[in-house]
Amino acid sequence: MENKFVYSFNEGSKDMRDLLGGKGANLAEMTKIGLPVPFGFTVTTEACKKYYSDGKQIDQTVVEEIKIKLVELENVMGKKFGDPKDPLLVSVRSGAPISMPGMMDTILNLGLNDETVIALAKLTDNERFAYDSYRRFIQMFGDVVLEVPMKEFNKIFDGQKAKVGAEFDVDLGTEDLKTIIVGYKKLVKDTLGRDFPQDPQEQLMEAITAVFRSWGNDRAILYRKLNDISESLGTAVNVQSMVFGNKGNDSGTGVAFTRSPVNGERSIYGEFLVNAQGEDVVAGIRTPKPIHEMAESFPEAYKNFEHIADVLEKHYTDMQDMEFTVENSKLFMLQTRNAKRTAEAAVNVAVDMVNEGLIDKKTAVLRIEPDFVEHLLHPRFDSDDEDKATPIAKGLAASPGAAFGKICFQAKDATELADKGEKAILVRQETSPEDLAGMVVAQGILTAHGGVTSHAAVVARGMGKCCVAGCSAVAIDEDAKVMTVNGKKYKEGEFISLNGTNGNVYEGMLKLVPPDISGNFNKIMSWADEIRTMKVRTNADTPKDLKQALVFGAEGVGLCRTEHMFFNEERIPAIREMIIAKDEKSRRVALAKLLPFQKGDFKEMYLAVGDRPMTVRLLDPPLHEFLPKTKEDMQQLAESSGVPYDVLVAEAESLKEFNPMLGHRGCRLAVTYPEIAEMQTEAIITAAIEASAELGKDIVPEIMIPLVGEKKELMNVKATVVATAEKCMEKADKKLEYMVGTMIEIPRAALTADEIAEEAEFFSFGTNDLTQMTFGLSRDDTAELIRGYVDKGIYDHDPFKSIDRDGVGKLMKLATELGKKTRPNIHLGICGEHGGDPKSIEFCNSIGLNYVSCSPYRVPVARLAAAQAAIKQGK
Amino acid sequence: MENKFVYSFNEGSKDMRDLLGGKGANLAEMTKIGLPVPFGFTVTTEACKKYYSDGKQIDQTVVEEIKIKLVELENVMGKKFGDPKDPLLVSVRSGAPISMPGMMDTILNLGLNDETVIALAKLTDNERFAYDSYRRFIQMFGDVVLEVPMKEFNKIFDGQKAKVGAEFDVDLGTEDLKTIIVGYKKLVKDTLGRDFPQDPQEQLMEAITAVFRSWGNDRAILYRKLNDISESLGTAVNVQSMVFGNKGNDSGTGVAFTRSPVNGERSIYGEFLVNAQGEDVVAGIRTPKPIHEMAESFPEAYKNFEHIADVLEKHYTDMQDMEFTVENSKLFMLQTRNAKRTAEAAVNVAVDMVNEGLIDKKTAVLRIEPDFVEHLLHPRFDSDDEDKATPIAKGLAASPGAAFGKICFQAKDATELADKGEKAILVRQETSPEDLAGMVVAQGILTAHGGVTSHAAVVARGMGKCCVAGCSAVAIDEDAKVMTVNGKKYKEGEFISLNGTNGNVYEGMLKLVPPDISGNFNKIMSWADEIRTMKVRTNADTPKDLKQALVFGAEGVGLCRTEHMFFNEERIPAIREMIIAKDEKSRRVALAKLLPFQKGDFKEMYLAVGDRPMTVRLLDPPLHEFLPKTKEDMQQLAESSGVPYDVLVAEAESLKEFNPMLGHRGCRLAVTYPEIAEMQTEAIITAAIEASAELGKDIVPEIMIPLVGEKKELMNVKATVVATAEKCMEKADKKLEYMVGTMIEIPRAALTADEIAEEAEFFSFGTNDLTQMTFGLSRDDTAELIRGYVDKGIYDHDPFKSIDRDGVGKLMKLATELGKKTRPNIHLGICGEHGGDPKSIEFCNSIGLNYVSCSPYRVPVARLAAAQAAIKQGK
Repeated sequence: MENKFVYSFNEGSKDMRDLLGGKGANLAEMTKIGLPVPFGFTVTTEACKKYYSDGKQIDQTVVEEIKIKLVELENVMGKKFGDPKDPLLVSVRSGAPISMPGMMDTILNLGLNDETVIALAKLTDNERFAYDSYRRFIQMFGDVVLEVPMKEFNKIFDGQKAKVGAEFDVDLGTEDLKTIIVGYKKLVKDTLGRDFPQDPQEQLMEAITAVFRSWGNDRAILYRKLNDISESLGTAVNVQSMVFGNKGNDSGTGVAFTRSPVNGERSIYGEFLVNAQGEDVVAGIRTPKPIHEMAESFPEAYKNFEHIADVLEKHYTDMQDMEFTVENSKLFMLQTRNAKRTAEAAVNVAVDMVNEGLIDKKTAVLRIEPDFVEHLLHPRFDSDDEDKATPIAKGLAASPGAAFGKICFQAKDATELADKGEKAILVRQETSPEDLAGMVVAQGILTAHGGVTSHAAVVARGMGKCCVAGCSAVAIDEDAKVMTVNGKKYKEGEFISLNGTNGNVYEGMLKLVPPDISGNFNKIMSWADEIRTMKVRTNADTPKDLKQALVFGAEGVGLCRTEHMFFNEERIPAIREMIIAKDEKSRRVALAKLLPFQKGDFKEMYLAVGDRPMTVRLLDPPLHEFLPKTKEDMQQLAESSGVPYDVLVAEAESLKEFNPMLGHRGCRLAVTYPEIAEMQTEAIITAAIEASAELGKDIVPEIMIPLVGEKKELMNVKATVVATAEKCMEKADKKLEYMVGTMIEIPRAALTADEIAEEAEFFSFGTNDLTQMTFGLSRDDTAELIRGYVDKGIYDHDPFKSIDRDGVGKLMKLATELGKKTRPNIHLGICGEHGGDPKSIEFCNSIGLNYVSCSPYRVPVARLAAAQAAIKQGK
Repeated sequence: MENKFVYSFNEGSKDMRDLLGGKGANLAEMTKIGLPVPFGFTVTTEACKKYYSDGKQIDQTVVEEIKIKLVELENVMGKKFGDPKDPLLVSVRSGAPISMPGMMDTILNLGLNDETVIALAKLTDNERFAYDSYRRFIQMFGDVVLEVPMKEFNKIFDGQKAKVGAEFDVDLGTEDLKTIIVGYKKLVKDTLGRDFPQDPQEQLMEAITAVFRSWGNDRAILYRKLNDISESLGTAVNVQSMVFGNKGNDSGTGVAFTRSPVNGERSIYGEFLVNAQGEDVVAGIRTPKPIHEMAESFPEAYKNFEHIADVLEKHYTDMQDMEFTVENSKLFMLQTRNAKRTAEAAVNVAVDMVNEGLIDKKTAVLRIEPDFVEHLLHPRFDSDDEDKATPIAKGLAASPGAAFGKICFQAKDATELADKGEKAILVRQETSPEDLAGMVVAQGILTAHGGVTSHAAVVARGMGKCCVAGCSAVAIDEDAKVMTVNGKKYKEGEFISLNGTNGNVYEGMLKLVPPDISGNFNKIMSWADEIRTMKVRTNADTPKDLKQALVFGAEGVGLCRTEHMFFNEERIPAIREMIIAKDEKSRRVALAKLLPFQKGDFKEMYLAVGDRPMTVRLLDPPLHEFLPKTKEDMQQLAESSGVPYDVLVAEAESLKEFNPMLGHRGCRLAVTYPEIAEMQTEAIITAAIEASAELGKDIVPEIMIPLVGEKKELMNVKATVVATAEKCMEKADKKLEYMVGTMIEIPRAALTADEIAEEAEFFSFGTNDLTQMTFGLSRDDTAELIRGYVDKGIYDHDPFKSIDRDGVGKLMKLATELGKKTRPNIHLGICGEHGGDPKSIEFCNSIGLNYVSCSPYRVPVARLAAAQAAIKQGK
């Protein structure tokens, strides 16, 4: 690496993102291709890393380089820092290699002081503008750099407004602003014991340091944690000469997308404010105008902007999210980046760009965030229901989708509700990064302030979560936990419904219906299917789930949990009778009652799945799970079974376990009660024989033995399965191929997979249990603990969400290697929750699994993730 | 291998045990060194394996070889099979490579038939003897080879006795025997539809086949399972010409040891019967005479026998167990083998033989079964007393030793009894930490549930207290204070006696014999100490345990469980106060109360252990374990704490876990409540500082962080420990070296041991938890399951008793390798129950652990086992 810590904008390019940050790299790129970017320079992420490794000290080398670049900037601009005639003013912005919206801090108008403010007033012939800029600068610098509480500044500002009877900020005159500035400076002096810095160089160094410092603030750390961004990246700092959108009515500022981030429509989408600086748009304090109205306000600049937008999209071959300022009718580009977008927009933009010849299919497939695909599959409101309902308010359609839930006014209330398994709608004046945790768990978000690019809107779209923003009809009292709409009060805990696609807010609960999957979605999916090498199966326990999954493109069933069939009202009495049976004979009587149900279910599933593979797992949970939980139900069972209540209670008591997770379950049941495995095998094999005949297809049942930890355990149960299967086939006078395999869900199974593969024809990784046992963590008991560990940085992520590669993954890799050593053609899959998680799917592809299996709604996610993994790993 | 399936006795030697079996090899050896052994041959174990691999068919090659050897035998003996004048008679005996007493079957007098019996009568001039031999042969052959039930033969025999009014067998005359023989032959014909075989060659082939078959009978399979003998060994068959101990009063038979198998005394020890065949001695039908009386009965033969015993012991350099027959005053040796012996005898014989120059010290050390050593440390029942008593029930031999006392069903009742100076036996369904006080004062513990690693068993072994666990024949009503065994009720206060070495439970009081640790024991131990390379530490939670362990030779403490200090009556209120504290501040108030107790305990232990190492583990169990279990106790806590009962109950409820084993415990507590780790660290460090000063020795505390699964978790807690330790040292103005390490007890810790070793200065394998998680088996719930698995041959052994090398061992080996890669001098030990198990100790030695740690009474076992491992592994 070159030993250089500061780059002018004309020295960089978009490929230098790691060093210059995203913003810096893109400013350099725009400069390189000749777009109108106010000149400046970037202090690199290396300087930031050095700052931290030096114990939060800016290195003198860095300081010297900044000074040199500052001189260069002064020369280019023909202005000087602190010049009482024509002062250079700059903005100072953070820019990390990975976009972290709202996480880092920005200073505008740096270089203003008691002298230069006068020069600015003269040069612009606008004294009010100059003093307003100065007071904004003191306030922003005071807050962000000097860490004087913003509310103290606001007190002074609002005090002055009240004093002169000003309704809006613009009602304040120049003298008022001067009075406020005096107050601000006194506040700084009183708080810190030193004057507000007047030397622009000192201001600049302090501001750069503050940006570096802000990399380590709590909000930034939380954001990185939530978004899996490495702590070691560091941020760059961009120092750019100021342009002013608040110079009058021929000035303005805005943000825009090259296409719609909501649905991908090919037309510039965005908003702007006349006579305003950038933070007014983002902060959602004033409500901006739609971008196309800019054609009236600044016709020349708008034409230019349309052209630049087109250039940028072609240059980056991706949809762009841009910031700009118009100063006295002249357009300046302040930022461009690849735009965040909804799932729908992502799909449409990707397909459109392939059609436009901008990108190829692989690129298109890589452009879709697999996790977002699920949002396309999620419900919307039933249109009849919605047509009949009258919205109580209408806000901005900030993030599409629909949701209902109980009103919550605080992030932590939403978290509490969610922990109880209830649905929450987070209602806030506007959201800030502090609300992130609540937004994650909420069904939807409603804000009173802010536009479609406000924090709430951006974050909600990022999460693919429905959001209605800027709904000013809603008066919110966050402390009293009540919102008032048209005079009617809605308290915490009451239900509301949100439609993020049209911005409507409704009282109560509206009916949700499943979504309609568009043609572009299917196109992307078909491209993904061409590319991927791993198969995608589904976890389905009922014919209904299976059929849904097949619609979503499942190529078979990776896990059919037979026990879920037992909980049905018709069947539970027989299974209970089986459990309380005192001997094998009476157990067999009860099992005989279950047989027709199981066989019927399997047959229906086989008829649906046809000759696609279906893995059926033998009974897994401990038997006590099937016994009644309440005294009443127990008494009922006593009556219906004829077994005395006391005997039943004693039996239930004796089945109780201290650690049921590690108890008498899985194949251990089949070792103890082979007759259960016999019944299940009979149901599977006879169902397959009958379905084969009806379909005229060769069905190959896959029978999976769970919780195996030792080869001889598998042998024991396999012997029962094989003997029963042979008997059934003999009886039906029909030969059927079938496979017997096992789950790898106990660490010991992974460690001895070479031995187990001698008996198992396939392995299916049960990563839920494997994670529990490898970590010694019960999922049922440690959700809060894991959250705490992630917050403290002890775990990078929740290992139940995404496979822990260092531990669980090591075991999986070992098991695949050992398994293949014994049986080179062993079939390998995964059926834990992780089978639907893109990062885990990528890992599964890397260790050579043949398929992943996941819940029906995750099937498209998995198809896409498997394709992306294949592209990234070149296989 | 030579393609030869049959060996004459003069073709083999003692080194051919695998091929000829133990008995055959020793018969060959005795033949080789010129001792009087009736000639014969051995059909090899290879022939047996071939029999099984051929689907239970004797190969024709084997048959031909047998015929050839039979001719050789006829030539040597000068007799012919089936010769109506001078018939050859043989015995057919099984003999596996590893002694399996009582498991295999024996046939005597083979070759007798309706013709040869007449010849035998003439030759011996003893018709009664001949016909008695014949009826015995038919009976034995009929039972063992033809599988006609023995009880049918007995019916005929007893019928004849009754008919003629014979009181004893000897009262039957020749004609009676002839009648019986007719009945026996009819029985065979009626049962099998064919005649009793008259052709001796046919008899021989059938008998050999029966021996092979018996290798696969249920008793044999069970024995092999129980004794860890491979199924693949096979058995040999010995065919030996008969000599007769029942030829009259100058004949006899006997068994004897070269020294006493009870105490090792150097004097022939055994018994004999005049005019009897071998099975009469073994079967215990007639009461034999002490061996030294043989000097009167057969003076010449006895003198010869004394000489041979001496020759054999010197030849084998070990104490021998011999069988012999005297036929017409002539001595014949039928068997010799290394003798089984009690722990006391083993120790004495080994030391004596070293003194006699027969063996060296290493051999002496290898001669002691380590598991038996513990028996020497505990009181026993007087063997005469116990022989006479009939057990009322049998449970698991959970902790060795013997005890009697009054039945108590509650810990506090035991305490009350003990306070009165009376002896108590604590009888519980199962014990929990709340019973500790009662266990401390009880003489012994009896539980109805739980296995050898249940709470009761583990704690009892730690205390060196006798325990019978899992005694399911005992139905306990703890509330009614009565236990029922076989329908008989035993109330509180009645006496019972427990033998924890064999699991027997007796009514009333049996006489106790105190342990006698002789000088020879200490001698063997000192030899073991010279040889072994692994250190032996103890698991001790109290100064009392520690002092006991130091007496037994412990070289430090490998595990001090701090939580055991908390259950004391004085301390539990403070820990409960800590648990129910609503915030950190009040938690600190409660912890401050605990600090002096913990510090005091640690100091007392440091004063005892001095500068030997002591590893203290931070709090491990989930907090709910410390809360009251009964409503009454909960109400008391409410009163004493001032916290409302409802709040307390809710708090206890919220702490409950579905799988506490995998829940909020271990270092997870310290991550959530760093103040607990702070208090414990302060107690450890200040105690060490004070003890160092008082002793004038440098104590190096070892602080162990439990349940770590991730490096950053360890870093988190270590930071708390280090900060606190530094603060304490600063306060005391005294520098102390100390170490921070971790337990490896979670699979993930083993898998990421390289990373963890970056932070840990030592690893201690917690193999109890590691086994639970690697197998996915909760030992509290699966004792019965594991028993079933061992019975079914699914597990070779209980993995909680001895380390599972294929799974858990693989993880341990990986962890030691990864740990050493990061930190070559990392200190490695084990503190799970396995640390006291000889086979596990051998494994620990093989993977290079520095020490094992076990309960005090296992320390001598471990010292010996470590020495044996070092000898066997050459290190």
